[in-house]
Amino acid sequence: MRSAVGVDLGGTKVQAVTLAGSGEVLGRARARTPGTGDVGAVVDAIAEAAGRAADEAGVALDALAGVGIGAPGRVTRDGTVSGAANLPGFGAPVPLAGLVAEELGVRRVVADNDVNAGALGEQRQGAGRGVEDLLAVFAGSGVGGGVVLGGRVRRGAHGAAGEVGHMVVVRGGDECPCGRRGCLEAYAGRVAMERKARAAAAAGRPTSLPLQDPDRRITSGVIAAALEQGDALTHELVDGAVAALGAGIASAVNLLDLDLVVLGGGLTEKLGGPFADRVRDAALPNLFVRPATLRVVPAALGDLAGAIGAALLALDAA
Amino acid sequence: MRSAVGVDLGGTKVQAVTLAGSGEVLGRARARTPGTGDVGAVVDAIAEAAGRAADEAGVALDALAGVGIGAPGRVTRDGTVSGAANLPGFGAPVPLAGLVAEELGVRRVVADNDVNAGALGEQRQGAGRGVEDLLAVFAGSGVGGGVVLGGRVRRGAHGAAGEVGHMVVVRGGDECPCGRRGCLEAYAGRVAMERKARAAAAAGRPTSLPLQDPDRRITSGVIAAALEQGDALTHELVDGAVAALGAGIASAVNLLDLDLVVLGGGLTEKLGGPFADRVRDAALPNLFVRPATLRVVPAALGDLAGAIGAALLALDAA
Repeated sequence: MRSAVGVDLGGTKVQAVTLAGSGEVLGRARARTPGTGDVGAVVDAIAEAAGRAADEAGVALDALAGVGIGAPGRVTRDGTVSGAANLPGFGAPVPLAGLVAEELGVRRVVADNDVNAGALGEQRQGAGRGVEDLLAVFAGSGVGGGVVLGGRVRRGAHGAAGEVGHMVVVRGGDECPCGRRGCLEAYAGRVAMERKARAAAAAGRPTSLPLQDPDRRITSGVIAAALEQGDALTHELVDGAVAALGAGIASAVNLLDLDLVVLGGGLTEKLGGPFADRVRDAALPNLFVRPATLRVVPAALGDLAGAIGAALLALDAA
Repeated sequence: MRSAVGVDLGGTKVQAVTLAGSGEVLGRARARTPGTGDVGAVVDAIAEAAGRAADEAGVALDALAGVGIGAPGRVTRDGTVSGAANLPGFGAPVPLAGLVAEELGVRRVVADNDVNAGALGEQRQGAGRGVEDLLAVFAGSGVGGGVVLGGRVRRGAHGAAGEVGHMVVVRGGDECPCGRRGCLEAYAGRVAMERKARAAAAAGRPTSLPLQDPDRRITSGVIAAALEQGDALTHELVDGAVAALGAGIASAVNLLDLDLVVLGGGLTEKLGGPFADRVRDAALPNLFVRPATLRVVPAALGDLAGAIGAALLALDAA
């Protein structure tokens, strides 16, 4: 049976899967991402996880159709990664696909941006099954996305397509962690939301968010709990995120005339369908097509989306 | 030689061209658009202009590869037009391609949105020659656009792709003539700009714009002249248009990673390259790809873009 290994290279972990051509996950493995900036150690961790995922599937590496990698930052068609802010050693260009091919002794290794891979995974095997055109939006610490058109991920002139988090939703608006203003991520990214929460608390705003410890991250779980407790500040921040997601999605849909948006990332994982419904309701007033047929649905593959999508890239390329 | 007739159906005029497969314009003709709401009269005007354009080229109608129509509103793949606000009789669905085919006795008649056709015309024969992927933005009385990817116009799920004028640039911002809020068109469309000018003048703001006569339209030429005279209100409105165009274009480019935007419509025709440069400068702070390689260039085909693009649609379909 035709199969490929897909690897999702994250800032803290490497997730690998072996995927059959049928879409079945035959094996999976995880490794820790070495955070030292040593590119060779990262390549070793990828190779090790890929090898274990293939082993678990009972497939020899040289019997694979190929290996796909989803990597943070910008990824060119030849598999060179650069500008990965959260992955030490991958700021300047790294020919990652070539290095992994050499390490594994596998001829066909392809790579794309991790969020693009996640979008492809959701389109083919997740919440977008059967739909050829969609936008995936992953709202986590930042906001990333991927545009799938005709069943293929749009890569763009520089491998940088799908930066939905940096679409402008309020011209000249709030500062984004990226340094620009008014980006979707400035409202719907967790890093930006945490900054706003800390600023509001410092200005005396009462909140049940655990902001006393500056090193404690305000995770999606913490946000979900504070919502549950009726914390007004948290409700306000989430309302802002929903409104910005709605505006950004409406812009993308008006430009591309899409019928499906898949919404993933931490907040969606915690808050589920009702959160996706709120985002759709926020997009609605700005949608051009009437009656609006747009569906906004939660992602279905969780943190396997990137690895599954990366495996699909390898199968597509084979 | 292979050739096709392209027809651009506007609210006031019908523009037809005969285009050779080489891209050369072999003939052209114009007719007035009957504004009575009589669909049959509009079909007659299209057929008449198409016939004269073919005559001028010395091509018999039955020797054409086909006829393409660019029509306002939403156009489905089978050539049905609906929702054309400025064309009486074309609000409810009209099977325009079929009606024109019957009238002309030509088998292959295809249709798309007029702005999509214009985008295709510019990509193949105008300012986008040699570039496969681009966004065209036409800022006239409203703001329309077209997305060309891989040399083909993106039509979308409902034939409504390319509505760049209704991308959200200021969430909850100014009211757009379409009734929504914060759309690009609310800042960069001439109808919206004229409304703002009238409101400012009514509130006592001095201006050299000729607003005394409520029936006199504030055309792009009038705006260009007022800019020339240093009218502060006009400068402010044009600054707002430039800023909004920059934000909307940045959003589209961040989503699709494009290297070229073609800017057309009245204001660009009057103000030319320097206006396109200002729009690029306004987009720059919000562009994700660094260094920014985006070019924003004025459209090259003027008011023939739609007819030429419509002819290309027919040639592509043949």
